[in-house]
Amino acid sequence: MSDCIFCKIVAGEMDTKFIYEDELVVVFPDIRPKATTHILITAKKHIPSLYSLDEHDTRLMGHMVQLLPVIAKQLGLHSFRTIINTGRDSGQEVDHLHFHLLAGNLPKFG
Amino acid sequence: MSDCIFCKIVAGEMDTKFIYEDELVVVFPDIRPKATTHILITAKKHIPSLYSLDEHDTRLMGHMVQLLPVIAKQLGLHSFRTIINTGRDSGQEVDHLHFHLLAGNLPKFG
Repeated sequence: MSDCIFCKIVAGEMDTKFIYEDELVVVFPDIRPKATTHILITAKKHIPSLYSLDEHDTRLMGHMVQLLPVIAKQLGLHSFRTIINTGRDSGQEVDHLHFHLLAGNLPKFG
Repeated sequence: MSDCIFCKIVAGEMDTKFIYEDELVVVFPDIRPKATTHILITAKKHIPSLYSLDEHDTRLMGHMVQLLPVIAKQLGLHSFRTIINTGRDSGQEVDHLHFHLLAGNLPKFG
């Protein structure tokens, strides 16, 4: 796990400023934003991707989805897009599960 | 609810062929595919968007996320992208909660 940049962020080793934190997740801005707002809801547990989920992760996944509108409301967003990339060809860059929350200057869907 | 096209699909009124169905969701192809593979994981319950979730929906959300890799594996996908659009400006076209599962000829992320 020691080579995982998101594990380092979760552990507080990167001085990342968290927008939100609880026992299951941390939320912080993407360092290479692809929209006006671009933040990452990141599991504290090192799960490489959706393909690595097991049956014990259902509550965590439900929690991460439920957080999306809570964070979006806090940011005052009327609309937002959630993206989860799974696998290199999809655009997943870090093998530690995270949901992208994007808003403003979004590419057209499709 | 009667004007909701996805409620009609869930009720079997549109002769939609389901890839998968259980007590909580139906899964079917998008009629206007935006990638080689483009399917929709759709809640049976009429929830307009992520902004409409309440605390009772956590299990449903966890279930919908858990289904993504299951369906993707069944389709033989090595990589896939999940998109949830919330609000008209994000590209949400139907006000009934659905997750897009896309693979093949994806636009570059960002």
